[in-house]
Amino acid sequence: MHFALVVYPQFEVLDAFGPTEALHCLGHPFVNPNSQDITFSVIGPHLNPVSTGPTEGDPSPVKSRVAQTIVLTHTFDAPPKDVDVLIVPGGFGAGPKVLHGGDWEPAGVERVVQFLRDQYPTLKHLLTVCNGAGLAARAGILDGQKATTNKQLWPAITALGPKTHWVARARWVVADNGKLWTSSGVSAGTDAMLALIDHIYGKNDQGTLYGDVIKEGMEWNRVYDSEADPFAGSNNVTDVPAQE
Amino acid sequence: MHFALVVYPQFEVLDAFGPTEALHCLGHPFVNPNSQDITFSVIGPHLNPVSTGPTEGDPSPVKSRVAQTIVLTHTFDAPPKDVDVLIVPGGFGAGPKVLHGGDWEPAGVERVVQFLRDQYPTLKHLLTVCNGAGLAARAGILDGQKATTNKQLWPAITALGPKTHWVARARWVVADNGKLWTSSGVSAGTDAMLALIDHIYGKNDQGTLYGDVIKEGMEWNRVYDSEADPFAGSNNVTDVPAQE
Repeated sequence: MHFALVVYPQFEVLDAFGPTEALHCLGHPFVNPNSQDITFSVIGPHLNPVSTGPTEGDPSPVKSRVAQTIVLTHTFDAPPKDVDVLIVPGGFGAGPKVLHGGDWEPAGVERVVQFLRDQYPTLKHLLTVCNGAGLAARAGILDGQKATTNKQLWPAITALGPKTHWVARARWVVADNGKLWTSSGVSAGTDAMLALIDHIYGKNDQGTLYGDVIKEGMEWNRVYDSEADPFAGSNNVTDVPAQE
Repeated sequence: MHFALVVYPQFEVLDAFGPTEALHCLGHPFVNPNSQDITFSVIGPHLNPVSTGPTEGDPSPVKSRVAQTIVLTHTFDAPPKDVDVLIVPGGFGAGPKVLHGGDWEPAGVERVVQFLRDQYPTLKHLLTVCNGAGLAARAGILDGQKATTNKQLWPAITALGPKTHWVARARWVVADNGKLWTSSGVSAGTDAMLALIDHIYGKNDQGTLYGDVIKEGMEWNRVYDSEADPFAGSNNVTDVPAQE
Protein backbone atom coordinates (compact mmCIF):
# COMPACT_ATOMS: atom_id res chain seq x y z
CA MET A 1 0.00 0.00 0.00
CA HIS A 2 1.20 3.48 -0.85
CA PHE A 3 0.27 6.15 1.70
CA ALA A 4 0.99 9.79 0.92
CA LEU A 5 0.85 12.93 3.01
CA VAL A 6 -0.06 16.31 1.50
CA VAL A 7 1.82 19.27 2.97
CA TYR A 8 1.68 23.01 2.33
CA PRO A 9 2.98 26.05 4.24
CA GLN A 10 1.53 26.34 7.75
CA PHE A 11 0.00 22.86 7.89
CA GLU A 12 -0.78 21.69 11.44
CA VAL A 13 1.98 19.46 12.73
CA LEU A 14 -0.04 16.89 14.71
CA ASP A 15 -2.69 16.64 11.96
CA ALA A 16 0.07 15.15 9.87
CA PHE A 17 2.28 13.27 12.28
CA GLY A 18 -0.32 11.60 14.47
CA PRO A 19 -1.58 9.57 11.50
CA THR A 20 1.92 8.93 10.19
CA GLU A 21 3.01 7.69 13.63
CA ALA A 22 0.34 5.02 13.21
CA LEU A 23 1.91 4.10 9.87
CA HIS A 24 5.36 3.92 11.45
CA CYS A 25 3.99 1.41 13.94
CA LEU A 26 2.12 -0.53 11.24
CA GLY A 27 5.39 -0.98 9.37
CA HIS A 28 7.67 -1.67 12.32
CA PRO A 29 8.18 -5.32 13.31
CA PHE A 30 9.02 -4.45 16.91
CA VAL A 31 5.57 -2.91 17.46
CA ASN A 32 3.74 -5.03 14.90
CA PRO A 33 5.09 -8.57 14.38
CA ASN A 34 2.88 -8.79 11.27
CA SER A 35 4.45 -5.59 9.96
CA GLN A 36 3.09 -4.35 6.68
CA ASP A 37 4.92 -3.39 3.53
CA ILE A 38 4.22 0.32 3.18
CA THR A 39 5.40 2.96 0.77
CA PHE A 40 5.15 6.54 2.01
CA SER A 41 5.48 9.85 0.18
CA VAL A 42 5.26 13.49 1.20
CA ILE A 43 3.76 15.67 -1.53
CA GLY A 44 3.64 19.46 -1.65
CA PRO A 45 3.94 22.55 -3.81
CA HIS A 46 7.70 22.27 -4.41
CA LEU A 47 10.68 20.23 -3.25
CA ASN A 48 11.93 22.90 -0.85
CA PRO A 49 11.23 22.08 2.79
CA VAL A 50 7.84 23.29 4.01
CA SER A 51 7.32 24.97 7.38
CA THR A 52 4.42 24.75 9.80
CA GLY A 53 4.96 28.42 10.65
CA PRO A 54 3.09 31.45 9.32
CA THR A 55 3.86 32.41 5.74
CA GLU A 56 5.24 35.79 4.80
CA GLY A 57 2.72 38.58 4.79
CA ASP A 58 0.20 36.75 6.95
CA PRO A 59 -1.88 39.54 8.52
CA SER A 60 -3.20 37.29 11.27
CA PRO A 61 -2.01 38.03 14.81
CA VAL A 62 0.20 34.94 15.01
CA LYS A 63 3.39 35.85 16.82
CA SER A 64 4.39 32.31 17.71
CA ARG A 65 7.82 31.31 16.57
CA VAL A 66 7.06 27.63 17.00
CA ALA A 67 7.59 25.92 13.66
CA GLN A 68 8.87 22.68 12.23
CA THR A 69 10.13 22.34 8.70
CA ILE A 70 9.66 19.17 6.70
CA VAL A 71 11.39 17.69 3.64
CA LEU A 72 9.21 16.58 0.72
CA THR A 73 9.57 13.65 -1.66
CA HIS A 74 7.26 14.76 -4.50
CA THR A 75 5.48 17.81 -5.87
CA PHE A 76 1.84 18.36 -6.81
CA ASP A 77 3.06 18.72 -10.42
CA ALA A 78 4.91 15.39 -10.40
CA PRO A 79 3.24 13.19 -7.78
CA PRO A 80 3.77 9.44 -7.42
CA LYS A 81 1.44 7.55 -9.77
CA ASP A 82 0.15 4.84 -7.46
CA VAL A 83 -1.04 6.51 -4.26
CA ASP A 84 -3.64 4.38 -2.47
CA VAL A 85 -4.34 6.53 0.60
CA LEU A 86 -3.93 10.29 0.65
CA ILE A 87 -3.74 12.07 4.03
CA VAL A 88 -4.70 15.76 4.03
CA PRO A 89 -3.86 17.68 7.20
CA GLY A 90 -5.47 20.95 8.13
CA GLY A 91 -3.80 23.99 9.57
CA PHE A 92 -3.98 27.74 9.30
CA GLY A 93 -2.29 27.45 5.92
CA ALA A 94 -5.41 25.74 4.55
CA GLY A 95 -7.51 28.81 5.13
CA PRO A 96 -10.19 29.91 4.67
CA LYS A 97 -9.44 33.63 4.54
CA VAL A 98 -11.41 34.38 7.68
CA LEU A 99 -8.66 32.71 9.74
CA HIS A 100 -6.20 35.34 8.57
CA GLY A 101 -8.26 38.47 9.01
CA GLY A 102 -10.88 38.00 6.34
CA ASP A 103 -9.46 39.00 2.97
CA TRP A 104 -6.18 37.16 2.72
CA GLU A 105 -5.11 33.55 2.68
CA PRO A 106 -1.75 31.88 2.11
CA ALA A 107 -0.74 31.58 -1.52
CA GLY A 108 -1.14 28.15 -3.04
CA VAL A 109 -4.33 26.97 -1.36
CA GLU A 110 -6.06 26.65 -4.75
CA ARG A 111 -3.20 24.44 -5.98
CA VAL A 112 -3.78 22.06 -3.05
CA VAL A 113 -7.50 22.01 -3.84
CA GLN A 114 -6.81 21.23 -7.50
CA PHE A 115 -4.42 18.44 -6.51
CA LEU A 116 -7.10 16.79 -4.35
CA ARG A 117 -9.65 17.13 -7.18
CA ASP A 118 -7.22 15.47 -9.60
CA GLN A 119 -6.18 12.67 -7.24
CA TYR A 120 -9.49 11.63 -5.71
CA PRO A 121 -10.81 9.47 -8.58
CA THR A 122 -7.82 7.08 -8.47
CA LEU A 123 -7.43 6.84 -4.68
CA LYS A 124 -8.62 3.96 -2.56
CA HIS A 125 -9.11 6.30 0.42
CA LEU A 126 -8.85 9.99 1.23
CA LEU A 127 -8.38 10.96 4.89
CA THR A 128 -8.79 14.60 5.86
CA VAL A 129 -7.84 15.88 9.30
CA CYS A 130 -9.20 19.04 10.93
CA ASN A 131 -9.85 21.83 8.41
CA GLY A 132 -8.23 19.68 5.73
CA ALA A 133 -11.92 18.90 5.11
CA GLY A 134 -12.29 22.47 3.89
CA LEU A 135 -9.78 21.77 1.12
CA ALA A 136 -11.72 18.65 0.09
CA ALA A 137 -14.96 20.64 0.23
CA ARG A 138 -13.53 23.28 -2.09
CA ALA A 139 -12.46 20.48 -4.44
CA GLY A 140 -16.09 19.31 -4.62
CA ILE A 141 -15.17 15.93 -3.14
CA LEU A 142 -17.59 16.33 -0.23
CA ASP A 143 -20.58 17.28 -2.38
CA GLY A 144 -23.52 15.03 -1.54
CA GLN A 145 -21.57 13.34 1.26
CA LYS A 146 -21.56 13.41 5.04
CA ALA A 147 -18.41 14.85 6.61
CA THR A 148 -16.98 16.45 9.72
CA THR A 149 -14.22 18.91 10.59
CA ASN A 150 -12.60 20.88 13.43
CA LYS A 151 -15.15 22.00 16.02
CA GLN A 152 -13.52 25.35 16.85
CA LEU A 153 -13.56 26.31 13.15
CA TRP A 154 -17.03 24.83 12.51
CA PRO A 155 -18.89 27.77 10.91
CA ALA A 156 -15.94 28.81 8.73
CA ILE A 157 -15.22 25.34 7.36
CA THR A 158 -18.75 24.03 6.97
CA ALA A 159 -19.53 27.13 4.88
CA LEU A 160 -17.03 25.84 2.30
CA GLY A 161 -19.21 22.78 1.61
CA PRO A 162 -22.82 23.87 1.13
CA LYS A 163 -23.70 20.58 -0.60
CA THR A 164 -22.39 18.51 2.33
CA HIS A 165 -24.19 17.29 5.44
CA TRP A 166 -21.79 18.27 8.21
CA VAL A 167 -22.05 15.96 11.21
CA ALA A 168 -21.34 17.77 14.46
CA ARG A 169 -21.04 14.95 16.98
CA ALA A 170 -18.39 12.93 15.17
CA ARG A 171 -14.74 12.23 15.86
CA TRP A 172 -14.69 11.05 12.25
CA VAL A 173 -17.15 10.26 9.44
CA VAL A 174 -16.87 7.58 6.74
CA ALA A 175 -18.68 8.29 3.45
CA ASP A 176 -18.64 7.54 -0.27
CA ASN A 177 -18.86 3.77 0.34
CA GLY A 178 -15.80 3.73 2.61
CA LYS A 179 -13.60 5.81 0.33
CA LEU A 180 -13.95 9.19 2.05
CA TRP A 181 -12.78 9.65 5.65
CA THR A 182 -13.07 13.06 7.29
CA SER A 183 -12.02 13.63 10.88
CA SER A 184 -12.52 16.35 13.44
CA GLY A 185 -9.73 18.54 14.81
CA VAL A 186 -6.07 17.57 15.10
CA SER A 187 -5.94 14.49 17.39
CA ALA A 188 -9.13 13.05 15.88
CA GLY A 189 -7.13 12.32 12.74
CA THR A 190 -5.15 9.68 14.59
CA ASP A 191 -8.27 7.85 15.80
CA ALA A 192 -9.61 8.02 12.24
CA MET A 193 -6.34 6.63 10.89
CA LEU A 194 -6.49 3.71 13.34
CA ALA A 195 -10.06 3.00 12.21
CA LEU A 196 -8.98 3.25 8.57
CA ILE A 197 -6.11 0.81 9.21
CA ASP A 198 -8.64 -1.63 10.70
CA HIS A 199 -10.83 -1.09 7.63
CA ILE A 200 -7.95 -1.85 5.26
CA TYR A 201 -6.02 -4.56 7.14
CA GLY A 202 -8.54 -6.07 9.56
CA LYS A 203 -7.07 -8.52 12.09
CA ASN A 204 -3.67 -10.15 12.31
CA ASP A 205 -2.93 -13.87 12.72
CA GLN A 206 -3.67 -13.62 16.44
CA GLY A 207 -7.12 -12.16 15.77
CA THR A 208 -6.13 -8.68 16.97
CA LEU A 209 -7.12 -5.60 14.99
CA TYR A 210 -4.04 -3.92 13.55
CA GLY A 211 -5.30 -0.63 14.98
CA ASP A 212 -5.18 -2.18 18.43
CA VAL A 213 -1.66 -3.49 17.92
CA ILE A 214 -0.64 0.03 16.94
CA LYS A 215 -2.42 1.86 19.76
CA GLU A 216 -0.45 -0.28 22.22
CA GLY A 217 2.79 0.77 20.55
CA MET A 218 1.69 4.39 20.58
CA GLU A 219 0.25 4.18 24.13
CA TRP A 220 -2.71 5.94 22.53
CA ASN A 221 -5.97 6.20 24.50
CA ARG A 222 -7.91 5.13 21.47
CA VAL A 223 -11.45 6.28 20.66
CA TYR A 224 -13.36 3.44 18.98
CA ASP A 225 -16.74 5.14 18.68
CA SER A 226 -16.74 7.64 15.83
CA GLU A 227 -19.60 9.49 17.56
CA ALA A 228 -17.73 9.91 20.88
CA ASP A 229 -16.88 13.56 20.52
CA PRO A 230 -16.83 15.78 23.63
CA PHE A 231 -15.60 18.69 21.54
CA ALA A 232 -18.91 19.03 19.69
CA GLY A 233 -20.44 19.77 23.07
CA SER A 234 -17.69 22.02 24.40
CA ASN A 235 -17.93 24.10 21.22
CA ASN A 236 -21.73 23.93 21.11
CA VAL A 237 -21.89 23.04 17.42
CA THR A 238 -24.76 21.35 15.62
CA ASP A 239 -25.24 19.57 12.31
CA VAL A 240 -25.25 21.68 9.16
CA PRO A 241 -27.47 19.96 6.57
CA ALA A 242 -26.72 20.18 2.86
CA GLN A 243 -28.43 23.05 1.09
CA GLU A 244 -30.60 22.11 -1.87
CA MET B 1 10.29 30.97 27.26
CA HIS B 2 12.63 29.09 24.97
CA PHE B 3 11.57 25.53 24.19
CA ALA B 4 13.90 23.27 22.24
CA LEU B 5 13.46 19.85 20.67
CA VAL B 6 16.33 17.37 20.42
CA VAL B 7 16.36 15.27 17.25
CA TYR B 8 18.62 12.48 16.00
CA PRO B 9 18.30 9.90 13.23
CA GLN B 10 15.29 7.60 13.69
CA PHE B 11 13.60 9.62 16.41
CA GLU B 12 9.91 8.77 16.86
CA VAL B 13 7.75 11.27 15.03
CA LEU B 14 4.82 11.60 17.47
CA ASP B 15 7.16 11.71 20.49
CA ALA B 16 8.36 14.98 19.07
CA PHE B 17 5.34 16.49 17.35
CA GLY B 18 2.64 15.78 19.90
CA PRO B 19 4.36 18.01 22.46
CA THR B 20 5.25 20.64 19.85
CA GLU B 21 1.62 20.73 18.68
CA ALA B 22 0.79 21.82 22.22
CA LEU B 23 3.36 24.60 21.88
CA HIS B 24 1.86 25.67 18.55
CA CYS B 25 -1.50 26.03 20.28
CA LEU B 26 0.04 27.81 23.28
CA GLY B 27 1.50 30.40 20.93
CA HIS B 28 -1.45 30.80 18.58
CA PRO B 29 -3.98 33.54 19.40
CA PHE B 30 -6.80 31.77 17.54
CA VAL B 31 -6.60 28.77 19.89
CA ASN B 32 -5.27 30.66 22.90
CA PRO B 33 -6.40 34.30 23.24
CA ASN B 34 -3.72 34.73 25.94
CA SER B 35 -1.11 33.43 23.52
CA GLN B 36 2.39 33.15 24.89
CA ASP B 37 5.63 34.47 23.52
CA ILE B 38 7.61 31.34 22.71
CA THR B 39 10.96 30.75 21.09
CA PHE B 40 11.47 27.30 19.62
CA SER B 41 14.59 25.55 18.37
CA VAL B 42 15.34 22.15 16.87
CA ILE B 43 18.76 20.84 17.89
CA GLY B 44 20.56 17.81 16.49
CA PRO B 45 23.89 16.35 15.44
CA HIS B 46 24.32 18.53 12.33
CA LEU B 47 22.35 21.02 10.25
CA ASN B 48 21.42 18.50 7.57
CA PRO B 49 17.80 17.38 7.77
CA VAL B 50 17.26 14.38 10.06
CA SER B 51 15.02 11.45 9.15
CA THR B 52 12.75 9.34 11.33
CA GLY B 53 13.65 6.32 9.18
CA PRO B 54 16.20 3.60 9.91
CA THR B 55 19.83 4.64 9.59
CA GLU B 56 22.21 2.94 7.19
CA GLY B 57 23.47 -0.41 8.32
CA ASP B 58 20.71 -0.96 10.87
CA PRO B 59 20.58 -4.75 11.26
CA SER B 60 17.10 -4.68 12.79
CA PRO B 61 14.30 -6.16 10.70
CA VAL B 62 12.73 -2.77 9.91
CA LYS B 63 11.49 -2.79 6.34
CA SER B 64 9.13 0.14 6.69
CA ARG B 65 9.68 2.93 4.25
CA VAL B 66 7.63 5.36 6.33
CA ALA B 67 9.85 8.29 7.23
CA GLN B 68 9.64 12.02 7.69
CA THR B 69 12.65 14.29 7.44
CA ILE B 70 13.00 17.40 9.57
CA VAL B 71 15.05 20.59 9.23
CA LEU B 72 17.17 21.67 12.22
CA THR B 73 17.96 25.12 13.56
CA HIS B 74 21.00 24.34 15.77
CA THR B 75 23.60 21.65 16.40
CA PHE B 76 24.70 19.94 19.61
CA ASP B 77 28.07 21.66 19.12
CA ALA B 78 26.54 25.16 18.82
CA PRO B 79 23.21 25.09 20.66
CA PRO B 80 21.19 28.16 21.62
CA LYS B 81 22.43 29.56 24.94
CA ASP B 82 19.15 30.20 26.70
CA VAL B 83 17.05 27.04 26.44
CA ASP B 84 14.48 26.83 29.24
CA VAL B 85 12.72 23.58 28.37
CA LEU B 86 14.37 20.75 26.47
CA ILE B 87 12.16 18.06 24.90
CA VAL B 88 13.83 14.69 24.27
CA PRO B 89 11.87 12.28 22.09
CA GLY B 90 12.50 8.56 22.01
CA GLY B 91 12.60 6.33 19.00
CA PHE B 92 14.53 3.36 17.72
CA GLY B 93 17.42 5.71 17.01
CA ALA B 94 17.86 6.23 20.76
CA GLY B 95 18.77 2.59 21.27
CA PRO B 96 19.66 0.67 23.32
CA LYS B 97 21.46 -1.89 21.18
CA VAL B 98 18.99 -4.64 21.98
CA LEU B 99 16.41 -2.88 19.78
CA HIS B 100 18.65 -3.39 16.77
CA GLY B 101 19.66 -6.98 17.27
CA GLY B 102 21.84 -6.73 20.35
CA ASP B 103 25.29 -5.53 19.35
CA TRP B 104 24.67 -2.46 17.23
CA GLU B 105 23.08 0.90 17.75
CA PRO B 106 22.85 3.98 15.54
CA ALA B 107 25.95 6.14 15.51
CA GLY B 108 25.72 9.29 17.55
CA VAL B 109 23.72 8.10 20.53
CA GLU B 110 26.59 8.94 22.88
CA ARG B 111 26.69 12.49 21.47
CA VAL B 112 22.99 12.95 22.38
CA VAL B 113 23.67 11.61 25.87
CA GLN B 114 26.60 14.01 26.31
CA PHE B 115 24.44 16.93 25.11
CA LEU B 116 21.77 16.16 27.71
CA ARG B 117 24.45 15.86 30.43
CA ASP B 118 25.85 19.27 29.43
CA GLN B 119 22.49 21.01 29.16
CA TYR B 120 20.65 19.72 32.22
CA PRO B 121 22.24 22.00 34.84
CA THR B 122 21.06 25.20 33.12
CA LEU B 123 17.56 24.05 32.09
CA LYS B 124 14.35 24.96 33.88
CA HIS B 125 12.78 21.68 32.75
CA LEU B 126 13.71 18.53 30.88
CA LEU B 127 10.90 16.49 29.31
CA THR B 128 11.68 13.02 28.01
CA VAL B 129 9.18 11.06 25.94
CA CYS B 130 9.16 7.27 25.54
CA ASN B 131 12.67 5.77 25.50
CA GLY B 132 14.07 9.29 25.48
CA ALA B 133 14.27 8.50 29.21
CA GLY B 134 16.98 5.97 28.35
CA LEU B 135 19.14 8.78 26.97
CA ALA B 136 18.64 10.81 30.16
CA ALA B 137 19.42 7.70 32.22
CA ARG B 138 22.68 7.17 30.35
CA ALA B 139 23.51 10.83 31.02
CA GLY B 140 23.14 10.18 34.77
CA ILE B 141 20.31 12.70 35.01
CA LEU B 142 17.89 10.12 36.40
CA ASP B 143 20.23 8.87 39.13
CA GLY B 144 18.47 9.00 42.48
CA GLN B 145 15.21 10.12 40.85
CA LYS B 146 11.87 8.54 40.04
CA ALA B 147 11.12 8.17 36.34
CA THR B 148 9.06 6.30 33.76
CA THR B 149 9.40 5.24 30.14
CA ASN B 150 7.76 3.27 27.33
CA LYS B 151 5.97 0.17 28.62
CA GLN B 152 6.73 -2.08 25.64
CA LEU B 153 10.47 -1.39 26.04
CA TRP B 154 10.38 -1.51 29.86
CA PRO B 155 13.13 -4.06 30.66
CA ALA B 156 15.53 -2.67 28.06
CA ILE B 157 15.19 0.97 29.10
CA THR B 158 14.94 0.57 32.86
CA ALA B 159 18.21 -1.43 32.73
CA LEU B 160 19.92 1.78 31.55
CA GLY B 161 19.16 3.50 34.86
CA PRO B 162 20.09 1.19 37.75
CA LYS B 163 20.15 4.11 40.21
CA THR B 164 16.59 5.17 39.28
CA HIS B 165 13.27 4.09 40.75
CA TRP B 166 11.24 3.28 37.65
CA VAL B 167 7.51 3.80 38.18
CA ALA B 168 5.44 1.36 36.15
CA ARG B 169 1.92 2.74 36.52
CA ALA B 170 2.62 6.26 35.33
CA ARG B 171 1.70 8.20 32.22
CA TRP B 172 4.37 10.61 33.39
CA VAL B 173 6.51 11.25 36.48
CA VAL B 174 7.72 14.59 37.86
CA ALA B 175 10.95 14.53 39.87
CA ASP B 176 13.94 16.65 40.92
CA ASN B 177 11.69 19.31 42.50
CA GLY B 178 9.66 19.81 39.32
CA LYS B 179 12.64 20.06 36.96
CA LEU B 180 12.62 16.53 35.57
CA TRP B 181 9.62 15.24 33.60
CA THR B 182 9.70 11.72 32.16
CA SER B 183 6.76 10.32 30.25
CA SER B 184 5.72 6.90 29.08
CA GLY B 185 5.47 5.86 25.41
CA VAL B 186 4.77 8.18 22.48
CA SER B 187 1.34 9.75 23.15
CA ALA B 188 2.04 10.06 26.88
CA GLY B 189 4.51 12.82 26.04
CA THR B 190 1.66 15.06 24.96
CA ASP B 191 -0.23 14.63 28.23
CA ALA B 192 3.01 15.31 30.08
CA MET B 193 3.58 18.45 28.02
CA LEU B 194 0.07 19.72 28.82
CA ALA B 195 0.75 19.13 32.52
CA LEU B 196 4.12 20.88 32.21
CA ILE B 197 2.45 23.85 30.51
CA ASP B 198 0.01 24.05 33.43
CA HIS B 199 2.99 23.86 35.80
CA ILE B 200 4.76 26.73 34.04
CA TYR B 201 1.87 28.99 33.01
CA GLY B 202 -0.98 28.09 35.37
CA LYS B 203 -4.34 29.67 34.53
CA ASN B 204 -5.28 32.42 32.10
CA ASP B 205 -7.32 35.56 32.84
CA GLN B 206 -10.53 33.53 32.66
CA GLY B 207 -9.29 31.08 35.28
CA THR B 208 -8.77 28.27 32.76
CA LEU B 209 -5.61 26.17 32.79
CA TYR B 210 -3.56 26.79 29.67
CA GLY B 211 -3.34 23.03 29.17
CA ASP B 212 -7.14 22.94 28.98
CA VAL B 213 -7.27 25.78 26.45
CA ILE B 214 -4.80 23.84 24.34
CA LYS B 215 -6.50 20.43 24.62
CA GLU B 216 -9.66 22.04 23.21
CA GLY B 217 -7.69 23.34 20.24
CA MET B 218 -6.08 19.95 19.75
CA GLU B 219 -9.33 18.05 20.41
CA TRP B 220 -7.11 15.95 22.68
CA ASN B 221 -8.76 13.48 25.08
CA ARG B 222 -6.54 14.67 27.86
CA VAL B 223 -5.29 12.48 30.70
CA TYR B 224 -5.09 14.54 33.90
CA ASP B 225 -4.05 11.79 36.27
CA SER B 226 -0.37 10.96 35.87
CA GLU B 227 -1.07 7.49 37.31
CA ALA B 228 -3.84 6.66 34.80
CA ASP B 229 -1.87 4.30 32.64
CA PRO B 230 -3.62 1.30 31.08
CA PHE B 231 -0.45 0.38 29.22
CA ALA B 232 1.35 -0.63 32.42
CA GLY B 233 -1.33 -3.28 32.80
CA SER B 234 -1.49 -4.37 29.17
CA ASN B 235 2.28 -4.84 29.19
CA ASN B 236 2.29 -6.40 32.66
CA VAL B 237 5.19 -4.28 33.93
CA THR B 238 6.02 -3.52 37.55
CA ASP B 239 8.17 -0.97 39.36
CA VAL B 240 11.93 -1.38 39.16
CA PRO B 241 13.47 0.01 42.36
CA ALA B 242 16.89 1.67 42.36
CA GLN B 243 19.73 -0.70 43.10
CA GLU B 244 21.95 0.24 45.98
